[in-house]
Amino acid sequence: MTNDTDNLAIDALGVAARQVEEKLLKLLPKAVDLEQQVIDAMEYALMAGGKRVRPFLVMEGARIFGVSENSALRVAAAVECAHTYSLIHDDLPCMDDDDMRRGQPSVHKKFDEATAVLAGDALLTLAFEILSDDSTHSDARVRCELINYLSKSLGVNGMVGGQMFDLLAENQELDKIRITRLQRMKTGALIVFSGKAGAILGKAEERRRQAIKGYAHDIGLAFQIVDDLLDEEGSSEDIGKTAGKDAAAGKATLVSLVGIEQARTMAEMLTNQAVQHLELFGDKAENLRNLAKFIINRAS
Amino acid sequence: MTNDTDNLAIDALGVAARQVEEKLLKLLPKAVDLEQQVIDAMEYALMAGGKRVRPFLVMEGARIFGVSENSALRVAAAVECAHTYSLIHDDLPCMDDDDMRRGQPSVHKKFDEATAVLAGDALLTLAFEILSDDSTHSDARVRCELINYLSKSLGVNGMVGGQMFDLLAENQELDKIRITRLQRMKTGALIVFSGKAGAILGKAEERRRQAIKGYAHDIGLAFQIVDDLLDEEGSSEDIGKTAGKDAAAGKATLVSLVGIEQARTMAEMLTNQAVQHLELFGDKAENLRNLAKFIINRAS
Repeated sequence: MTNDTDNLAIDALGVAARQVEEKLLKLLPKAVDLEQQVIDAMEYALMAGGKRVRPFLVMEGARIFGVSENSALRVAAAVECAHTYSLIHDDLPCMDDDDMRRGQPSVHKKFDEATAVLAGDALLTLAFEILSDDSTHSDARVRCELINYLSKSLGVNGMVGGQMFDLLAENQELDKIRITRLQRMKTGALIVFSGKAGAILGKAEERRRQAIKGYAHDIGLAFQIVDDLLDEEGSSEDIGKTAGKDAAAGKATLVSLVGIEQARTMAEMLTNQAVQHLELFGDKAENLRNLAKFIINRAS
Repeated sequence: MTNDTDNLAIDALGVAARQVEEKLLKLLPKAVDLEQQVIDAMEYALMAGGKRVRPFLVMEGARIFGVSENSALRVAAAVECAHTYSLIHDDLPCMDDDDMRRGQPSVHKKFDEATAVLAGDALLTLAFEILSDDSTHSDARVRCELINYLSKSLGVNGMVGGQMFDLLAENQELDKIRITRLQRMKTGALIVFSGKAGAILGKAEERRRQAIKGYAHDIGLAFQIVDDLLDEEGSSEDIGKTAGKDAAAGKATLVSLVGIEQARTMAEMLTNQAVQHLELFGDKAENLRNLAKFIINRAS
Protein backbone atom coordinates (compact mmCIF):
# COMPACT_ATOMS: atom_id res chain seq x y z
CA MET A 1 0.00 0.00 0.00
CA THR A 2 1.41 3.38 -0.96
CA ASN A 3 -0.36 6.62 -0.07
CA ASP A 4 0.49 10.33 -0.05
CA THR A 5 2.24 10.27 3.32
CA ASP A 6 4.42 7.46 2.03
CA ASN A 7 5.31 9.42 -1.08
CA LEU A 8 6.26 12.46 0.99
CA ALA A 9 8.37 10.34 3.30
CA ILE A 10 9.98 8.57 0.37
CA ASP A 11 10.74 11.89 -1.37
CA ALA A 12 12.31 13.37 1.77
CA LEU A 13 14.21 10.15 2.45
CA GLY A 14 15.47 10.15 -1.13
CA VAL A 15 16.73 13.72 -0.95
CA ALA A 16 18.65 13.04 2.27
CA ALA A 17 20.00 9.79 0.84
CA ARG A 18 21.45 11.48 -2.27
CA GLN A 19 23.02 14.23 -0.14
CA VAL A 20 24.67 11.84 2.28
CA GLU A 21 25.90 9.57 -0.50
CA GLU A 22 27.59 12.54 -2.16
CA LYS A 23 29.19 13.48 1.17
CA LEU A 24 30.35 9.91 1.83
CA LEU A 25 32.14 9.74 -1.50
CA LYS A 26 33.97 12.97 -0.64
CA LEU A 27 34.93 11.69 2.82
CA LEU A 28 36.38 8.36 1.65
CA PRO A 29 40.15 8.32 2.11
CA LYS A 30 42.58 8.12 -0.81
CA ALA A 31 45.22 5.42 -1.22
CA VAL A 32 48.46 5.20 -3.17
CA ASP A 33 49.18 1.46 -3.22
CA LEU A 34 47.65 -1.98 -2.61
CA GLU A 35 45.53 -0.68 0.31
CA GLN A 36 43.20 0.74 -2.37
CA GLN A 37 41.30 -2.55 -2.12
CA VAL A 38 39.96 -1.76 1.34
CA ILE A 39 38.69 1.61 0.06
CA ASP A 40 37.01 -0.14 -2.88
CA ALA A 41 35.25 -2.45 -0.42
CA MET A 42 34.20 0.48 1.79
CA GLU A 43 32.76 2.29 -1.21
CA TYR A 44 31.02 -0.85 -2.48
CA ALA A 45 29.32 -1.33 0.89
CA LEU A 46 28.47 2.34 1.40
CA MET A 47 26.98 2.71 -2.08
CA ALA A 48 24.87 -0.48 -1.98
CA GLY A 49 21.76 1.58 -1.37
CA GLY A 50 19.35 1.23 1.50
CA LYS A 51 16.78 3.71 2.75
CA ARG A 52 19.37 5.74 4.72
CA VAL A 53 16.93 6.11 7.61
CA ARG A 54 19.68 6.98 10.09
CA PRO A 55 21.16 9.83 8.02
CA PHE A 56 17.60 11.08 7.44
CA LEU A 57 17.03 11.20 11.20
CA VAL A 58 20.26 13.16 11.67
CA MET A 59 19.37 15.61 8.89
CA GLU A 60 15.81 16.19 10.08
CA GLY A 61 16.87 16.54 13.72
CA ALA A 62 19.54 19.04 12.70
CA ARG A 63 16.97 21.05 10.71
CA ILE A 64 14.64 21.25 13.72
CA PHE A 65 17.47 22.58 15.88
CA GLY A 66 18.80 25.04 13.29
CA VAL A 67 22.10 23.28 12.64
CA SER A 68 24.11 23.99 9.46
CA GLU A 69 23.70 21.53 6.64
CA ASN A 70 27.43 20.81 6.53
CA SER A 71 27.54 19.79 10.20
CA ALA A 72 24.46 17.65 9.76
CA LEU A 73 25.79 15.94 6.64
CA ARG A 74 29.09 15.11 8.29
CA VAL A 75 27.36 13.51 11.27
CA ALA A 76 24.91 11.73 8.94
CA ALA A 77 27.87 10.37 6.98
CA ALA A 78 29.58 9.20 10.18
CA VAL A 79 26.42 7.39 11.27
CA GLU A 80 26.12 5.69 7.89
CA CYS A 81 29.78 4.60 8.11
CA ALA A 82 29.07 3.06 11.52
CA HIS A 83 25.89 1.38 10.29
CA THR A 84 27.63 0.01 7.20
CA TYR A 85 30.51 -1.36 9.29
CA SER A 86 27.98 -3.28 11.37
CA LEU A 87 26.31 -4.75 8.27
CA ILE A 88 29.64 -5.90 6.81
CA HIS A 89 30.73 -7.62 10.02
CA ASP A 90 27.26 -9.09 10.70
CA ASP A 91 27.23 -10.71 7.25
CA LEU A 92 30.55 -12.54 7.82
CA PRO A 93 30.44 -16.35 7.73
CA CYS A 94 31.31 -16.54 11.44
CA MET A 95 28.39 -14.22 12.29
CA ASP A 96 25.06 -14.31 10.43
CA ASP A 97 26.69 -15.84 7.32
CA ASP A 98 24.74 -13.86 4.75
CA ASP A 99 25.93 -14.00 1.14
CA MET A 100 23.52 -11.33 -0.04
CA ARG A 101 22.84 -7.80 1.15
CA ARG A 102 20.35 -5.49 -0.57
CA GLY A 103 20.20 -7.81 -3.55
CA GLN A 104 23.96 -7.81 -4.12
CA PRO A 105 26.79 -10.07 -2.95
CA SER A 106 27.84 -9.07 0.56
CA VAL A 107 31.35 -7.65 0.95
CA HIS A 108 33.07 -10.91 1.87
CA LYS A 109 31.57 -12.56 -1.25
CA LYS A 110 32.40 -9.66 -3.58
CA PHE A 111 35.94 -9.34 -2.15
CA ASP A 112 37.05 -11.80 0.55
CA GLU A 113 36.70 -12.22 4.30
CA ALA A 114 39.89 -10.41 5.23
CA THR A 115 38.91 -7.41 3.14
CA ALA A 116 35.43 -7.44 4.71
CA VAL A 117 36.84 -7.43 8.25
CA LEU A 118 39.23 -4.61 7.37
CA ALA A 119 36.61 -2.55 5.47
CA GLY A 120 34.34 -2.75 8.54
CA ASP A 121 37.20 -1.77 10.83
CA ALA A 122 38.11 1.15 8.57
CA LEU A 123 34.50 2.42 8.37
CA LEU A 124 34.14 2.35 12.15
CA THR A 125 37.42 4.24 12.46
CA LEU A 126 36.38 6.72 9.76
CA ALA A 127 33.17 7.54 11.66
CA PHE A 128 35.26 8.83 14.57
CA GLU A 129 37.69 10.62 12.27
CA ILE A 130 34.80 12.51 10.69
CA LEU A 131 33.19 13.45 14.02
CA SER A 132 36.43 14.64 15.61
CA ASP A 133 37.36 16.97 12.75
CA ASP A 134 37.01 20.72 13.37
CA SER A 135 34.65 21.12 10.41
CA THR A 136 31.95 18.96 12.04
CA HIS A 137 31.24 21.61 14.69
CA SER A 138 33.11 24.70 15.88
CA ASP A 139 32.72 23.67 19.53
CA ALA A 140 34.99 20.74 20.45
CA ARG A 141 32.76 19.92 23.44
CA VAL A 142 29.93 19.19 21.03
CA ARG A 143 32.21 16.97 18.93
CA CYS A 144 33.34 15.08 22.03
CA GLU A 145 29.75 14.64 23.20
CA LEU A 146 28.83 13.13 19.82
CA ILE A 147 31.86 10.83 19.87
CA ASN A 148 31.21 9.68 23.43
CA TYR A 149 27.56 9.03 22.72
CA LEU A 150 28.27 7.23 19.44
CA SER A 151 30.93 5.03 21.02
CA LYS A 152 28.52 4.03 23.78
CA SER A 153 25.80 3.30 21.21
CA LEU A 154 28.17 1.03 19.29
CA GLY A 155 29.89 -0.69 22.22
CA VAL A 156 29.22 -3.58 24.56
CA ASN A 157 26.15 -1.89 26.02
CA GLY A 158 24.93 -1.07 22.51
CA MET A 159 25.35 -2.61 19.09
CA VAL A 160 28.27 -4.99 19.65
CA GLY A 161 26.70 -6.30 22.87
CA GLY A 162 23.40 -6.75 21.04
CA GLN A 163 25.05 -8.79 18.29
CA MET A 164 26.88 -10.98 20.83
CA PHE A 165 23.63 -11.48 22.74
CA ASP A 166 21.78 -12.30 19.51
CA LEU A 167 24.34 -14.90 18.43
CA LEU A 168 24.35 -16.62 21.82
CA ALA A 169 20.54 -16.49 22.16
CA GLU A 170 19.90 -18.59 19.05
CA ASN A 171 17.51 -21.40 19.83
CA GLN A 172 16.87 -19.95 23.27
CA GLU A 173 13.42 -18.89 24.37
CA LEU A 174 13.63 -15.23 25.32
CA ASP A 175 10.93 -13.32 27.18
CA LYS A 176 9.62 -9.96 26.05
CA ILE A 177 11.95 -8.00 28.32
CA ARG A 178 15.07 -9.69 27.02
CA ILE A 179 14.00 -9.45 23.37
CA THR A 180 13.22 -5.76 23.76
CA ARG A 181 16.55 -5.15 25.48
CA LEU A 182 18.38 -7.07 22.76
CA GLN A 183 16.78 -4.96 20.05
CA ARG A 184 17.41 -1.72 21.90
CA MET A 185 21.08 -2.64 21.97
CA LYS A 186 21.49 -4.17 18.53
CA THR A 187 19.58 -1.70 16.37
CA GLY A 188 17.90 0.79 18.72
CA ALA A 189 21.00 2.45 20.13
CA LEU A 190 22.31 3.74 16.79
CA ILE A 191 18.83 4.93 15.76
CA VAL A 192 18.48 6.82 19.04
CA PHE A 193 21.91 8.35 18.48
CA SER A 194 20.86 9.41 14.98
CA GLY A 195 17.69 11.03 16.30
CA LYS A 196 19.42 12.87 19.11
CA ALA A 197 22.49 14.00 17.13
CA GLY A 198 20.76 17.13 15.78
CA ALA A 199 19.81 18.17 19.30
CA ILE A 200 23.40 17.75 20.45
CA LEU A 201 24.71 19.70 17.45
CA GLY A 202 22.15 22.45 18.17
CA LYS A 203 22.93 22.48 21.92
CA ALA A 204 19.21 22.00 22.56
CA GLU A 205 17.74 22.18 26.05
CA GLU A 206 17.18 18.91 27.90
CA ARG A 207 13.38 18.79 27.39
CA ARG A 208 13.77 18.96 23.62
CA ARG A 209 16.63 16.44 23.66
CA GLN A 210 14.44 13.99 25.55
CA ALA A 211 11.52 14.51 23.15
CA ILE A 212 13.47 13.68 20.02
CA LYS A 213 15.22 10.84 21.81
CA GLY A 214 11.82 9.42 22.77
CA TYR A 215 10.69 9.65 19.16
CA ALA A 216 13.80 7.88 17.88
CA HIS A 217 13.55 5.19 20.53
CA ASP A 218 9.95 4.39 19.63
CA ILE A 219 10.37 4.36 15.86
CA GLY A 220 13.54 2.28 16.29
CA LEU A 221 11.60 -0.43 18.07
CA ALA A 222 8.67 -0.14 15.65
CA PHE A 223 11.08 -0.37 12.72
CA GLN A 224 12.52 -3.61 14.11
CA ILE A 225 9.08 -5.15 14.66
CA VAL A 226 8.04 -4.25 11.12
CA ASP A 227 11.28 -5.76 9.79
CA ASP A 228 10.50 -8.97 11.67
CA LEU A 229 6.93 -8.95 10.33
CA LEU A 230 8.24 -8.58 6.77
CA ASP A 231 10.78 -11.33 7.40
CA GLU A 232 8.00 -13.60 8.63
CA GLU A 233 5.51 -12.78 5.86
CA GLY A 234 7.46 -11.28 3.00
CA SER A 235 9.26 -12.63 0.00
CA SER A 236 13.01 -12.35 -0.43
CA GLU A 237 12.43 -9.90 -3.26
CA ASP A 238 10.54 -7.42 -1.06
CA ILE A 239 13.13 -7.23 1.66
CA GLY A 240 16.29 -7.71 -0.43
CA LYS A 241 17.58 -10.51 1.74
CA THR A 242 16.69 -14.12 2.42
CA ALA A 243 13.12 -14.20 3.82
CA GLY A 244 12.34 -16.26 6.91
CA LYS A 245 16.07 -16.42 7.67
CA ASP A 246 15.79 -15.25 11.26
CA ALA A 247 13.09 -17.80 12.03
CA ALA A 248 15.12 -20.53 10.33
CA ALA A 249 18.16 -19.56 12.43
CA GLY A 250 16.05 -20.05 15.56
CA LYS A 251 16.23 -16.36 16.41
CA ALA A 252 13.62 -15.15 18.85
CA THR A 253 11.79 -12.00 17.74
CA LEU A 254 8.81 -10.19 19.23
CA VAL A 255 6.77 -11.55 16.31
CA SER A 256 7.66 -15.15 17.10
CA LEU A 257 6.85 -14.52 20.77
CA VAL A 258 3.54 -12.65 20.61
CA GLY A 259 2.31 -13.50 17.10
CA ILE A 260 1.75 -11.38 14.00
CA GLU A 261 -1.41 -9.58 15.09
CA GLN A 262 -0.16 -8.45 18.48
CA ALA A 263 3.20 -7.46 17.02
CA ARG A 264 1.45 -5.26 14.46
CA THR A 265 -0.60 -3.65 17.25
CA MET A 266 2.61 -2.96 19.21
CA ALA A 267 4.24 -1.37 16.18
CA GLU A 268 1.19 0.87 15.73
CA MET A 269 1.20 1.91 19.37
CA LEU A 270 4.90 2.70 19.19
CA THR A 271 4.57 4.86 16.07
CA ASN A 272 1.64 6.76 17.61
CA GLN A 273 3.68 7.34 20.73
CA ALA A 274 6.65 8.42 18.58
CA VAL A 275 4.52 11.04 16.83
CA GLN A 276 3.29 12.38 20.19
CA HIS A 277 6.90 13.11 21.19
CA LEU A 278 7.11 15.44 18.17
CA GLU A 279 4.33 17.84 19.31
CA LEU A 280 6.93 20.12 20.84
CA PHE A 281 8.40 20.80 17.41
CA GLY A 282 5.25 21.75 15.46
CA ASP A 283 5.46 21.90 11.69
CA LYS A 284 9.23 21.52 11.66
CA ALA A 285 8.79 17.84 12.50
CA GLU A 286 6.51 17.08 9.56
CA ASN A 287 9.05 14.87 7.79
CA LEU A 288 9.68 12.90 10.99
CA ARG A 289 5.90 12.37 11.37
CA ASN A 290 5.75 11.11 7.82
CA LEU A 291 8.63 8.74 8.49
CA ALA A 292 6.74 7.21 11.42
CA LYS A 293 3.68 6.66 9.21
CA PHE A 294 5.85 5.29 6.42
CA ILE A 295 7.36 2.71 8.77
CA ILE A 296 4.01 1.44 10.02
CA ASN A 297 2.54 1.41 6.50
CA ARG A 298 5.28 -0.98 5.36
CA ALA A 299 3.71 -3.60 7.61
CA SER A 300 0.16 -3.35 6.28
CA MET B 1 72.42 -10.26 26.61
CA THR B 2 71.06 -8.30 29.52
CA ASN B 3 72.86 -5.30 30.96
CA ASP B 4 72.05 -2.45 33.35
CA THR B 5 70.31 -0.30 30.74
CA ASP B 6 68.10 -3.25 29.90
CA ASN B 7 67.21 -3.76 33.53
CA LEU B 8 66.29 -0.10 33.95
CA ALA B 9 64.17 -0.19 30.82
CA ILE B 10 62.52 -3.43 31.90
CA ASP B 11 61.78 -2.02 35.37
CA ALA B 12 60.24 1.15 33.97
CA LEU B 13 58.30 -0.83 31.36
CA GLY B 14 57.03 -3.14 34.08
CA VAL B 15 55.82 -0.28 36.28
CA ALA B 16 53.90 1.32 33.40
CA ALA B 17 52.51 -2.07 32.38
CA ARG B 18 51.07 -2.78 35.85
CA GLN B 19 49.54 0.70 36.01
CA VAL B 20 47.87 0.48 32.64
CA GLU B 21 46.60 -3.04 33.29
CA GLU B 22 44.94 -1.84 36.48
CA LYS B 23 43.37 1.06 34.56
CA LEU B 24 42.17 -1.21 31.75
CA LEU B 25 40.35 -3.48 34.20
CA LYS B 26 38.56 -0.45 35.63
CA LEU B 27 37.60 0.83 32.18
CA LEU B 28 36.13 -2.44 30.91
CA PRO B 29 32.35 -2.13 30.55
CA LYS B 30 29.91 -4.15 32.65
CA ALA B 31 27.23 -6.43 31.23
CA VAL B 32 23.97 -7.83 32.58
CA ASP B 33 23.20 -10.68 30.18
CA LEU B 34 24.71 -12.92 27.49
CA GLU B 35 26.84 -10.07 26.11
CA GLN B 36 29.17 -10.75 29.04
CA GLN B 37 31.05 -13.11 26.71
CA VAL B 38 32.42 -10.29 24.59
CA ILE B 39 33.72 -8.57 27.75
CA ASP B 40 35.37 -11.82 28.84
CA ALA B 41 37.10 -12.00 25.45
CA MET B 42 38.19 -8.36 25.67
CA GLU B 43 39.64 -8.95 29.14
CA TYR B 44 41.35 -12.18 28.05
CA ALA B 45 43.05 -10.39 25.17
CA LEU B 46 43.94 -7.26 27.16
CA MET B 47 45.42 -9.26 30.03
CA ALA B 48 47.48 -11.65 27.90
CA GLY B 49 50.64 -9.72 28.73
CA GLY B 50 53.05 -8.16 26.31
CA LYS B 51 55.65 -5.50 26.96
CA ARG B 52 53.09 -2.64 26.79
CA VAL B 53 55.56 -0.52 24.85
CA ARG B 54 52.82 1.79 23.52
CA PRO B 55 51.38 2.65 26.95
CA PHE B 56 54.93 3.16 28.19
CA LEU B 57 55.54 5.70 25.40
CA VAL B 58 52.34 7.53 26.34
CA MET B 59 53.24 7.59 30.04
CA GLU B 60 56.82 8.75 29.48
CA GLY B 61 55.77 11.40 26.95
CA ALA B 62 53.13 12.65 29.37
CA ARG B 63 55.72 12.86 32.16
CA ILE B 64 58.07 14.93 30.00
CA PHE B 65 55.27 17.40 29.24
CA GLY B 66 53.96 17.61 32.81
CA VAL B 67 50.63 15.89 32.18
CA SER B 68 48.62 14.40 35.06
CA GLU B 69 48.98 10.68 35.60
CA ASN B 70 45.23 10.10 35.25
CA SER B 71 45.13 11.71 31.79
CA ALA B 72 48.19 9.77 30.72
CA LEU B 73 46.82 6.46 31.99
CA ARG B 74 43.50 6.94 30.21
CA VAL B 75 45.25 7.63 26.90
CA ALA B 76 47.65 4.74 27.50
CA ALA B 77 44.66 2.46 28.13
CA ALA B 78 42.96 3.67 24.93
CA VAL B 79 46.10 2.96 22.93
CA GLU B 80 46.36 -0.54 24.39
CA CYS B 81 42.69 -1.18 23.52
CA ALA B 82 43.40 -0.14 19.93
CA HIS B 83 46.56 -2.26 19.76
CA THR B 84 44.79 -5.29 21.23
CA TYR B 85 41.90 -4.93 18.76
CA SER B 86 44.42 -5.07 15.93
CA LEU B 87 46.06 -8.22 17.32
CA ILE B 88 42.71 -10.01 17.70
CA HIS B 89 41.60 -9.22 14.14
CA ASP B 90 45.06 -9.93 12.65
CA ASP B 91 45.06 -13.40 14.23
CA LEU B 92 41.73 -14.39 12.61
CA PRO B 93 41.80 -17.35 10.21
CA CYS B 94 40.94 -15.07 7.26
CA MET B 95 43.87 -12.79 8.13
CA ASP B 96 47.22 -14.10 9.46
CA ASP B 97 45.55 -17.26 10.84
CA ASP B 98 47.50 -17.47 14.07
CA ASP B 99 46.30 -19.90 16.74
CA MET B 100 48.74 -18.66 19.36
CA ARG B 101 49.47 -15.21 20.75
CA ARG B 102 51.97 -14.60 23.55
CA GLY B 103 52.08 -18.32 24.30
CA GLN B 104 48.31 -18.64 24.74
CA PRO B 105 45.47 -19.55 22.40
CA SER B 106 44.44 -16.51 20.39
CA VAL B 107 40.95 -15.12 21.04
CA HIS B 108 39.19 -16.99 18.21
CA LYS B 109 40.65 -20.28 19.51
CA LYS B 110 39.86 -19.58 23.16
CA PHE B 111 36.33 -18.37 22.31
CA ASP B 112 35.19 -18.46 18.66
CA GLU B 113 35.57 -16.36 15.53
CA ALA B 114 32.39 -14.33 16.01
CA THR B 115 33.41 -13.42 19.56
CA ALA B 116 36.89 -12.47 18.32
CA VAL B 117 35.50 -10.16 15.63
CA LEU B 118 33.15 -8.54 18.16
CA ALA B 119 35.77 -8.24 20.91
CA GLY B 120 38.05 -6.44 18.45
CA ASP B 121 35.22 -4.16 17.35
CA ALA B 122 34.34 -3.40 20.98
CA LEU B 123 37.94 -2.62 21.93
CA LEU B 124 38.33 -0.22 19.01
CA THR B 125 35.08 1.47 20.02
CA LEU B 126 36.13 1.59 23.68
CA ALA B 127 39.35 3.41 22.76
CA PHE B 128 37.29 6.30 21.37
CA GLU B 129 34.88 6.21 24.31
CA ILE B 130 37.78 6.58 26.73
CA LEU B 131 39.43 9.42 24.80
CA SER B 132 36.20 11.42 24.38
CA ASP B 133 35.28 11.33 28.07
CA ASP B 134 35.70 14.59 30.03
CA SER B 135 38.03 12.95 32.54
CA THR B 136 40.71 12.33 29.87
CA HIS B 137 41.48 16.05 29.57
CA SER B 138 39.64 19.20 30.67
CA ASP B 139 40.04 20.79 27.23
CA ALA B 140 37.74 19.18 24.65
CA ARG B 141 39.96 20.47 21.83
CA VAL B 142 42.77 18.31 23.17
CA ARG B 143 40.47 15.28 23.34
CA CYS B 144 39.32 15.87 19.75
CA GLU B 145 42.91 16.25 18.57
CA LEU B 146 43.81 12.91 20.16
CA ILE B 147 40.74 11.22 18.63
CA ASN B 148 41.38 12.65 15.19
CA TYR B 149 45.04 11.65 15.29
CA LEU B 150 44.30 8.16 16.62
CA SER B 151 41.60 7.54 14.00
CA LYS B 152 44.02 8.56 11.23
CA SER B 153 46.72 6.31 12.71
CA LEU B 154 44.32 3.35 12.70
CA GLY B 155 42.57 3.96 9.36
CA VAL B 156 43.24 3.28 5.69
CA ASN B 157 46.34 5.47 5.68
CA GLY B 158 47.53 3.81 8.88
CA MET B 159 47.10 0.41 10.48
CA VAL B 160 44.15 -0.99 8.51
CA GLY B 161 45.69 0.08 5.21
CA GLY B 162 48.99 -1.49 6.30
CA GLN B 163 47.31 -4.79 7.08
CA MET B 164 45.46 -4.80 3.72
CA PHE B 165 48.72 -3.98 1.93
CA ASP B 166 50.55 -6.71 3.84
CA LEU B 167 47.94 -9.37 2.98
CA LEU B 168 47.93 -8.47 -0.70
CA ALA B 169 51.73 -8.20 -0.89
CA GLU B 170 52.34 -11.82 0.12
CA ASN B 171 54.71 -13.49 -2.32
CA GLN B 172 55.35 -10.15 -3.99
CA GLU B 173 58.83 -8.68 -4.17
CA LEU B 174 58.69 -5.28 -2.50
CA ASP B 175 61.41 -2.68 -2.71
CA LYS B 176 62.77 -0.87 0.34
CA ILE B 177 60.48 2.14 -0.11
CA ARG B 178 57.31 0.05 -0.19
CA ILE B 179 58.37 -2.16 2.73
CA THR B 180 59.19 0.89 4.83
CA ARG B 181 55.89 2.53 3.92
CA LEU B 182 54.01 -0.68 4.76
CA GLN B 183 55.63 -0.86 8.19
CA ARG B 184 55.05 2.83 8.88
CA MET B 185 51.36 2.22 8.26
CA LYS B 186 50.92 -1.18 9.88
CA THR B 187 52.86 -0.73 13.11
CA GLY B 188 54.57 2.66 12.93
CA ALA B 189 51.50 4.89 12.97
CA LEU B 190 50.19 3.72 16.34
CA ILE B 191 53.68 3.90 17.87
CA VAL B 192 54.07 7.47 16.61
CA PHE B 193 50.65 8.32 18.04
CA SER B 194 51.70 6.85 21.39
CA GLY B 195 54.89 8.88 21.42
CA LYS B 196 53.20 12.11 20.48
CA ALA B 197 50.14 11.73 22.73
CA GLY B 198 51.90 13.21 25.78
CA ALA B 199 52.89 16.29 23.77
CA ILE B 200 49.29 16.77 22.64
CA LEU B 201 48.00 16.32 26.20
CA GLY B 202 50.59 18.84 27.42
CA LYS B 203 49.85 21.31 24.58
CA ALA B 204 53.55 21.32 23.79
CA GLU B 205 55.04 23.69 21.25
CA GLU B 206 55.58 22.41 17.70
CA ARG B 207 59.37 21.95 17.99
CA ARG B 208 58.95 19.63 20.98
CA ARG B 209 56.08 17.77 19.33
CA GLN B 210 58.26 17.10 16.29
CA ALA B 211 61.16 15.91 18.44
CA ILE B 212 59.18 13.26 20.29
CA LYS B 213 57.40 12.28 17.09
CA GLY B 214 60.78 11.79 15.42
CA TYR B 215 61.92 9.61 18.31
CA ALA B 216 58.77 7.47 18.16
CA HIS B 217 59.00 7.14 14.39
CA ASP B 218 62.59 5.91 14.54
CA ILE B 219 62.15 3.44 17.39
CA GLY B 220 58.95 2.17 15.72
CA LEU B 221 60.87 1.25 12.60
CA ALA B 222 63.78 -0.15 14.63
CA PHE B 223 61.36 -2.20 16.72
CA GLN B 224 59.89 -3.73 13.57
CA ILE B 225 63.30 -4.59 12.13
CA VAL B 226 64.34 -6.22 15.41
CA ASP B 227 61.07 -8.19 15.45
CA ASP B 228 61.82 -9.42 11.93
CA LEU B 229 65.39 -10.33 12.95
CA LEU B 230 64.05 -12.33 15.91
CA ASP B 231 61.48 -13.97 13.63
CA GLU B 232 64.26 -14.95 11.22
CA GLU B 233 66.74 -16.16 13.85
CA GLY B 234 64.78 -16.86 17.00
CA SER B 235 62.96 -19.82 18.38
CA SER B 236 59.20 -19.86 18.92
CA GLU B 237 59.82 -19.85 22.65
CA ASP B 238 61.76 -16.57 22.59
CA ILE B 239 59.17 -14.62 20.67
CA GLY B 240 56.00 -16.28 21.97
CA LYS B 241 54.67 -16.97 18.50
CA THR B 242 55.53 -19.27 15.63
CA ALA B 243 59.09 -18.47 14.49
CA GLY B 244 59.85 -18.03 10.81
CA LYS B 245 56.14 -17.60 10.15
CA ASP B 246 56.47 -14.38 8.19
CA ALA B 247 59.13 -15.86 5.95
CA ALA B 248 57.04 -19.01 5.47
CA ALA B 249 54.04 -16.87 4.51
CA GLY B 250 56.15 -15.24 1.80
CA LYS B 251 56.03 -11.89 3.55
CA ALA B 252 58.66 -9.42 2.49
CA THR B 253 60.53 -7.77 5.36
CA LEU B 254 63.53 -5.46 5.38
CA VAL B 255 65.53 -8.42 6.73
CA SER B 256 64.61 -10.63 3.77
CA LEU B 257 65.44 -7.78 1.39
CA VAL B 258 68.78 -6.50 2.71
CA GLY B 259 69.97 -9.43 4.83
CA ILE B 260 70.56 -9.85 8.56
CA GLU B 261 73.74 -7.82 8.86
CA GLN B 262 72.54 -4.75 7.03
CA ALA B 263 69.16 -4.89 8.80
CA ARG B 264 70.93 -4.89 12.17
CA THR B 265 73.01 -1.90 11.09
CA MET B 266 69.85 -0.05 10.06
CA ALA B 267 68.20 -0.78 13.40
CA GLU B 268 71.28 0.58 15.18
CA MET B 269 71.28 3.74 13.07
CA LEU B 270 67.61 4.28 13.76
CA THR B 271 67.93 3.89 17.52
CA ASN B 272 70.91 6.29 17.57
CA GLN B 273 68.89 8.78 15.59
CA ALA B 274 65.93 8.24 17.93
CA VAL B 275 68.08 9.07 20.95
CA GLN B 276 69.34 12.25 19.26
CA HIS B 277 65.75 13.51 19.00
CA LEU B 278 65.56 13.33 22.81
CA GLU B 279 68.37 15.84 23.48
CA LEU B 280 65.80 18.61 23.82
CA PHE B 281 64.32 16.93 26.87
CA GLY B 282 67.47 16.35 28.94
CA ASP B 283 67.25 14.01 31.92
CA LYS B 284 63.49 13.74 31.70
CA ALA B 285 63.87 11.50 28.68
CA GLU B 286 66.15 8.98 30.41
CA ASN B 287 63.55 6.18 30.34
CA LEU B 288 62.91 6.76 26.64
CA ARG B 289 66.67 6.56 25.99
CA ASN B 290 66.82 3.29 27.87
CA LEU B 291 63.90 1.95 25.84
CA ALA B 292 65.79 2.67 22.61
CA LYS B 293 68.82 0.79 23.92
CA PHE B 294 66.63 -2.05 25.16
CA ILE B 295 65.11 -2.46 21.70
CA ILE B 296 68.44 -2.65 19.91
CA ASN B 297 69.90 -4.98 22.55
CA ARG B 298 67.11 -7.50 21.90
CA ALA B 299 68.66 -8.04 18.47
CA SER B 300 72.20 -8.77 19.64
